[in-house]
Order: sequence, then structure tokens, then C-alpha cells
Amino acid sequence: MNSSLDSELLPTVAEVEAAARRIGGRAVETPLLEWPALNERIGGRVLVKPEQLQRTGSFKFRGAFNKLSCLAELGGSASVVAYSSGNHAQGVAAAAQLLGFKATIVMPSDAPAIKIANTRSYGAEVVLYDRQRDDREAIAEALAAKTGATIVRPYEDADVISGQGTVGLELARQARARGAELDAALIPCGGGGLIAGSTLALQATWPRLPVFACEPEGFDDTGRSLAAHRRLGCAAGAKTVCDGLMAPIPGRLTFALNDRQLAGGIALSDGEVFQAMAYAFQVLKLVLEPSGAVALAALLSGKFQGRGLAVGIVCSGGNVDPEIYAKALDAVT
Amino acid sequence: MNSSLDSELLPTVAEVEAAARRIGGRAVETPLLEWPALNERIGGRVLVKPEQLQRTGSFKFRGAFNKLSCLAELGGSASVVAYSSGNHAQGVAAAAQLLGFKATIVMPSDAPAIKIANTRSYGAEVVLYDRQRDDREAIAEALAAKTGATIVRPYEDADVISGQGTVGLELARQARARGAELDAALIPCGGGGLIAGSTLALQATWPRLPVFACEPEGFDDTGRSLAAHRRLGCAAGAKTVCDGLMAPIPGRLTFALNDRQLAGGIALSDGEVFQAMAYAFQVLKLVLEPSGAVALAALLSGKFQGRGLAVGIVCSGGNVDPEIYAKALDAVT
Repeated sequence: MNSSLDSELLPTVAEVEAAARRIGGRAVETPLLEWPALNERIGGRVLVKPEQLQRTGSFKFRGAFNKLSCLAELGGSASVVAYSSGNHAQGVAAAAQLLGFKATIVMPSDAPAIKIANTRSYGAEVVLYDRQRDDREAIAEALAAKTGATIVRPYEDADVISGQGTVGLELARQARARGAELDAALIPCGGGGLIAGSTLALQATWPRLPVFACEPEGFDDTGRSLAAHRRLGCAAGAKTVCDGLMAPIPGRLTFALNDRQLAGGIALSDGEVFQAMAYAFQVLKLVLEPSGAVALAALLSGKFQGRGLAVGIVCSGGNVDPEIYAKALDAVT
Repeated sequence: MNSSLDSELLPTVAEVEAAARRIGGRAVETPLLEWPALNERIGGRVLVKPEQLQRTGSFKFRGAFNKLSCLAELGGSASVVAYSSGNHAQGVAAAAQLLGFKATIVMPSDAPAIKIANTRSYGAEVVLYDRQRDDREAIAEALAAKTGATIVRPYEDADVISGQGTVGLELARQARARGAELDAALIPCGGGGLIAGSTLALQATWPRLPVFACEPEGFDDTGRSLAAHRRLGCAAGAKTVCDGLMAPIPGRLTFALNDRQLAGGIALSDGEVFQAMAYAFQVLKLVLEPSGAVALAALLSGKFQGRGLAVGIVCSGGNVDPEIYAKALDAVT
């Protein structure tokens, strides 16, 4: 990745639409869901895009499948390397299995066991590293150099961003199909690929739609960077239960889009995330992982005021170990 | 209810269609869901109707709202009494709130706390009884006699059966919309209202569709009654984790339909039910209550062989206390 960033590198909504054609029939078109009880609680209309129903249990399959499809169109090496705390790992592994690629995935040894096991179940080779000590990108680059594999980055890649953007594309079309015009959207943000791509598509439908990045407290780098209009990293030593949203600094590509597109950031505490997971258990009857629950947490906590509005939210994944889920059940009132 | 049963009392698919018009816009049209992972595991095509996404967290709202709408059309007393272990209670309470009825619900004192709390949250008065000692129907009848309220029975009522049948009506239409022709359907069965009404609608689309009643072991009265072609009760003292499927004997109305329509019964153990709940947590990312998981359990346990078939299944509800759900999490592999 160059440190100078040419606008031509940035994906457009046309590329999100092309990604939708590539993943069609292989990715699940997740439904758009609505609950009278949630609408009443918020005093508005809440339209939920439940990406835990996606293949591999999170939206990440979309970007991975689009990227590998593009690689297959180009020809060349049919092996890929990825680094990921878990959901991107599963997405790449599943896409590789479907498209006949060999996949090696570099994962932190403290990633949720369910994510490591699932990644292996798609036939990928898993290489574990120590999150505190090792540099996962260096490990991936050494593997790629040795084997000639292509690195599939989790968000610093226009094809990955375009693939994730199909979430927003479907959300906009499905909302319109039920006669809803969104007033705002809340989307989880780690490295920023999902929100960058999805906002391209959402703002193609509603040009001035306010879209907010939902992040864990301590990892609110995108929110702070949006306020400063430059990429700011996280302080070292922060902790969060949201294992999928621990990117230390916004991506260059993703932030170039997000800085143009987003209205701001909302940071959520572990307690607010557990409350949202508990609400999803008790009322929505959906299993959410912590990272997948931040947008719902922004709404339920009142940090985003949804009264009188039609709000689209993305629940991005549901891959959570039973031990962590039990903590959310403790938050059921 | 007369002991002799006139065929004219039995609902037809036209009444299910009328119910669909009455509940339209008030009940949630739940989506039809499909997972590549579940299809691969079964070696067939599995189409899931997730009624835990329905208003009140189970299908029961459909029948209750249809019944109360019919009462409102007839005029007369705007107060109702119901007896229920929980989901019918919530359905009647929520329908009463929407339609301006006063509701009194007779519930067993050992019903899941979440179901009792939710019933009260819809503004209903809850009268608790002892499941071992008291006769809930006698309590309900005494209340009705004293107040002039109408009793809303959980399944021995043509309007309730027609309302529950809208699950099957939507399932058939949604399956066709995605190009699927069902080979079989698996539906939870307690008193038999959901499966009786839904099969009316399913067999209007696929006249010889085999539909199987999924019941807990020890409460497999419908399965045994189907084999004998007469109503057989359960042995006393049986236990099951499926608190919503403990009807002691098939209903007269429901069995008159089910005896004509159903292909047979499948009985599931608590262990099989917990395994299905765990699978729904781990792979489907849906919260299922034990009673809501029996059809999925029939498929996953291999008691119904889905290989090579397109199978529609109903997941009927998700109202489960955290303590019970934690047991299902223990079954996650």
C-alpha cells in the first residue's frame, strides 16, 4: 500500500454493484428484519440487517468471496494468505474452499475457539501467533513470499471493501421495498471496510444519509480520526470484549472513504455491548457476538437517539463462544 | 366443545387465507431462511420458518389475533380469558392490547419466568395455578362465568387454528418464490393447532405433502393417536424440557384435521432438543426455546432422513429463560 493515496484506488458504488453480481447465489441474501417491540422501545422504526445469518456467521464472506473471484478472473496463483482475529479468517477460508484456492490463515492464539475451529473446518491451514509479541502482517508476508500466495487483507483492499458494501446495497433495496426511507444508519467499524463499502451503496440511494461508525471504547480510532480529519491510532493497552473490532488505526483506503462519507463515531462500553446481546437474546431471538452488537448497543444505550427516525442498523456477526455468551445472558433482566 | 364433531366445524384453507388478511400488518411476516451449512449437513435443502421472530417471540400471536379480530367483528364482550403455559398467554395478551380487549391469563406457576413477565408486560392480568393440583380450564371457566369474558382456547378453536395456519400459508408462498417445491414438512405439535392449520395451507399447495408432527418423548400423544386413528392420552408423570408441548391428549378439532392430513409423528428426547438448540446457537445464530427446536431436532438427529429432499421446518418460538439456555450452550461441541 502506498502512503500517498490516489483517488482512483478507491472503490465506487459501481464496484459494489459488480461485487453483488459476483457473490450472487454464493452469499446468502440476508433478510431485513423489523420488530414491533424494538420499534416501540426506540420510538422510531429500526430496520436490522442480520449478517450473522450470512455464510460463515458474519458479513466477512462477502468481501472475501469478491476478492477471490477477482483473483480468479485475473488468473495467477490459486493460493491465498490472510490474517484475522476470526471472521475474516472464516470468510477467506470458506471462499477459498468454494473457489478451489489453497488458504493459509494467520490467527491470534487468543481468538475465540469457535472462530479457529470453523476456519479449519473450511479446509484452511491455520497458523497461530501471539497478539502481544508477533507482527501478524510480517508473518503473512513471509508466508506469501515463500509460497507465492496472494495476501487477502481484511479491509485495505478495494475488492474487499466493495464486497462488504453489498450489505449496504441490499439494505437500501430491501428498505425501499418495504416503503422505508432511512434517516440514519449505524454500522460496526473495526478497520472500516464494512462501513466504507456499505455507505457507498447507502448514499447512492440517500445522498446525505448520516452514517455513524460504532466502535468499542478504547478502539474508537475511526470516531476520533473523523473528528480530527486525520488517521489517529488507539492508545496501547486498551481492552474490549469486541474481538473483531480491535484494529489499532483506521485503514488508509477505508479512512479516505470514511472521512468523506461518515457523520461521526459512537463508542460503546463492554457493558452496553452485553446489554445489547442480552436484548437480542430476549427480544430479537438472534445470537450476536460482541462485535456484531455494537450498532444495536448504540441505539439501545441512547447514545444514538432514534426517536421519530427510520434507522438502518447492521448486526455484523454471531460467532461467539458459549462462555462469552453466558456473560451476556447474565445481563438479561 | 361437543363430543360429536361436525365436519362443518373444521376450518378450511379459505379460513386460513381470511386469517392472513386479518393479521396482515399486525403480525410479522417472518422470512423463510436457508443456510448452506445446514443444507450440506443434511444433504438436502432445508427451508426454515423462524417464528421466534414473530411478535411475542412465537407463532401464537397469529391465532390469538385472528380469534380476537373475529370476536371484535361479532361485537359483544371485549374481555377474554386464556389458559396457557406461556406462548399462547403472550399471544392473547399482545393481541388484546392491540385490539383494546381486557385479558386475564391463567398460567402455571412453574412457567418460564420470561413468559410470565412478558405476558404482564402486555397489560394482561396473570392468575397463577399449580400444574399438579389445579384444573386450569375450570379456573378459566369460573373467571369467564364471573366476568362475562370469552375463553380463548389455545388450540380447540377454528379461528385459532386458522390463524396459526398462516405460518404454513407463508411458508408455501415463500418456498415457491425461491423456486423450491417441498418434499416434506416437519412442524412442532403440542395440542396440534399450528400443525393442523399449517398443513391445510401446505397441502393446498402440495396436495400429497407428507407432514410430520414433532413432539417431545412422553408427550407423543399425537404420533401415537395418528397410528391408532383415535385420540390417545399421555401416561401420567412424563417430563420434558419442552414446556410448550405438554398437552396431555390431542384436541378433538385439531386431531380431526391431523388424522386426515398428517403422515405420522416423530418423538424427540430432551438431549436431542438441546443438541438442536445448540446447533441453532452455533450455526444458525437463532435463539430457540426447547419447544421451538423439536422440528430441527427431528432433522439433525436423523430421526427424519432429509437426504436428497427439500424439507420445510417450523421453528415455533424462542422464549427461553437464560438458565435453560445455558444448558443448551453446554451441548455446543
